[in-house]
Amino acid sequence: MTAPQYTTFPHKYLKEFTAKVFQHFKVDEEDAWQAADVLSKADVRGIDSHGVARLKTYVDMFLIGRINPKAEIKIVRQKKSVATVDGDSGLGLIVGPKANKIAMDLASEYGSGWVSVCNTNHYGIASYYSLQALERDMIGWSMTNSSRIVVPLWGAERRLGTNPISIAFPGYRNPPIVIDLATSVVAFGKIEQAKRQGKSVPEGWMIDSQGKTSTNPEDVYEGGLLPLGSNREMGGHKGYALSAMVDILSCVLSGANWGPFAPPFALFEEAPKKSVGKGIGHFFGAMEIDGFEDVDVFKKRIDDWIEVFRKTKPAPGHDAVLIPGDPEHECEKVRTVNGIPVIQAVVDDLVGISKKTGIPFFVADPHQPGIVK
Amino acid sequence: MTAPQYTTFPHKYLKEFTAKVFQHFKVDEEDAWQAADVLSKADVRGIDSHGVARLKTYVDMFLIGRINPKAEIKIVRQKKSVATVDGDSGLGLIVGPKANKIAMDLASEYGSGWVSVCNTNHYGIASYYSLQALERDMIGWSMTNSSRIVVPLWGAERRLGTNPISIAFPGYRNPPIVIDLATSVVAFGKIEQAKRQGKSVPEGWMIDSQGKTSTNPEDVYEGGLLPLGSNREMGGHKGYALSAMVDILSCVLSGANWGPFAPPFALFEEAPKKSVGKGIGHFFGAMEIDGFEDVDVFKKRIDDWIEVFRKTKPAPGHDAVLIPGDPEHECEKVRTVNGIPVIQAVVDDLVGISKKTGIPFFVADPHQPGIVK
Repeated sequence: MTAPQYTTFPHKYLKEFTAKVFQHFKVDEEDAWQAADVLSKADVRGIDSHGVARLKTYVDMFLIGRINPKAEIKIVRQKKSVATVDGDSGLGLIVGPKANKIAMDLASEYGSGWVSVCNTNHYGIASYYSLQALERDMIGWSMTNSSRIVVPLWGAERRLGTNPISIAFPGYRNPPIVIDLATSVVAFGKIEQAKRQGKSVPEGWMIDSQGKTSTNPEDVYEGGLLPLGSNREMGGHKGYALSAMVDILSCVLSGANWGPFAPPFALFEEAPKKSVGKGIGHFFGAMEIDGFEDVDVFKKRIDDWIEVFRKTKPAPGHDAVLIPGDPEHECEKVRTVNGIPVIQAVVDDLVGISKKTGIPFFVADPHQPGIVK
Repeated sequence: MTAPQYTTFPHKYLKEFTAKVFQHFKVDEEDAWQAADVLSKADVRGIDSHGVARLKTYVDMFLIGRINPKAEIKIVRQKKSVATVDGDSGLGLIVGPKANKIAMDLASEYGSGWVSVCNTNHYGIASYYSLQALERDMIGWSMTNSSRIVVPLWGAERRLGTNPISIAFPGYRNPPIVIDLATSVVAFGKIEQAKRQGKSVPEGWMIDSQGKTSTNPEDVYEGGLLPLGSNREMGGHKGYALSAMVDILSCVLSGANWGPFAPPFALFEEAPKKSVGKGIGHFFGAMEIDGFEDVDVFKKRIDDWIEVFRKTKPAPGHDAVLIPGDPEHECEKVRTVNGIPVIQAVVDDLVGISKKTGIPFFVADPHQPGIVK
């Protein structure tokens, strides 16, 4: 097979197109730009699976009426620093930032703020929200459930999403430490990639329909992903437990659909037969650094932490120990200047959305942003 | 080699002995019983490495003056729901419960409470603290750093402790979901066990002094443990990131010794050449369930979660999917009635402590609690 073809677009061009698409579906201008900012952040940080590549799925959901473009996000229960928020079936990319703002506003008032959110859908990259907290000198936490794809340790059935956890810490001279990890051993996209390349996957990534571990990527469609740690010997009970934690904080606490009942994101995914709540769920937290320590003192200590860890003697075959968030930070520096490489299949999706909505999208014209490479 | 010999003691007998030992070292009666309760909880829940097996190390630390028996635990900075606590070099088994109580009291007042603690030492099992929160209808979080034994992904030097994370959720009819996991792939004790049995360990648990993965348990003494996920392909960057999170929340935030600078627990461990703070650090959180949802509604939803996950079709070779905390809960039921089996090496330690302190400890007398099995 040949290498995939990419077209490179300025990130602002993709963001503007995205914002206009959401406005086409009756989302208010400010909300549409907010939603576009979340997807754009994924693209500039190199998390390609969560950027414009997902726009088509959001469009599909608008087309079938699954998303309320005029959602009114409400606090339904609160006790000072903790609250439950109902997303009113809004776009996760809008519900997420609004709920996160509630958490941060609570933190401004009470030192910390913690919000569990129901009646929402996919919110983009988890680290978008923890990064927002840094702008307010807070430590931000973000979690979400997603549709079932992961099996619990020793199980032969999908019961959990890839359920990511993000938390970020600001440096003083250094870029922030940004932790953002799915609690599955790998993302589903890695298995799809192996399939496209005709390769097998490592033992421990996935199971087949019988619950046996498999290295054939085709098997995942009737099987599922394993949790971080893979098996008992290598700590698979830990990945399962972390995924359960995300599921409970995001859904059981808020009244969203937990575990296997999470509604699917993409149209081709099978919907669960039963609903136990409203939409999917998120969980946001924010803590004022100043409540624990002088903000600059903390940031300088983070610098020291980063510098000591960077100096760790590397293992054979590796140049250096990385700091969580390093690859995304490097990518952001490059892509903000050089643009976002978009794979042909996603370009085709965007052209399709352009035709459907009438919003112009230009590719391969030397006078326009899309330049075939 | 022969199977190790155990002596079984009623848990109350071990707890009383432990409390008297701490009192011998000038700890107040109430504090001594509190500390004994933490160690006893580890023993009844089957986490043998963290129970009376550790008493000798605490005694050693009292003997060299590393622990302040009359510590005055103080809030040194606070903004409503968040605070930094100084443990005044007290016993971690006393500082931990007091700091956790501060977090829970803040939660009673502000809906949630978050406490980062410096100037402390080993606090026992992380889940002791998350379980305490359940008694107050709160969701409890607990983390701590510990002395360096884990390498960051791609590193050839120890930089982090096994840095556990615990969180617990109460059921209504069911026992609670109790998550308590070290962020290393396995506990150091598992490697020591393999060494005693003359066995090799699985690839991915540890590295040697050169930073290469090794299956020879002897190599760990000059090498180190790998983080959960082991290598890049299997998610080792995630275990490293989780360990970093614990380190920063517990230590960088509170002003304790982070990363490689954590002072050692046991006397035979080499002390770091430099100090960057006070003692080691913990992080406690508590959230009032009632701030998010009616407490009984939440507990019944947890019951539903537990029951759905228990019914997951098991993978070949397994009977059932477990709920986090199941093995410890089963153990607690048995050991509360049948007593705690203590391995001979630990019995010898306890006899040694008895001789040193003059506190009676009886073994192998039919009229006394220790019954050789």
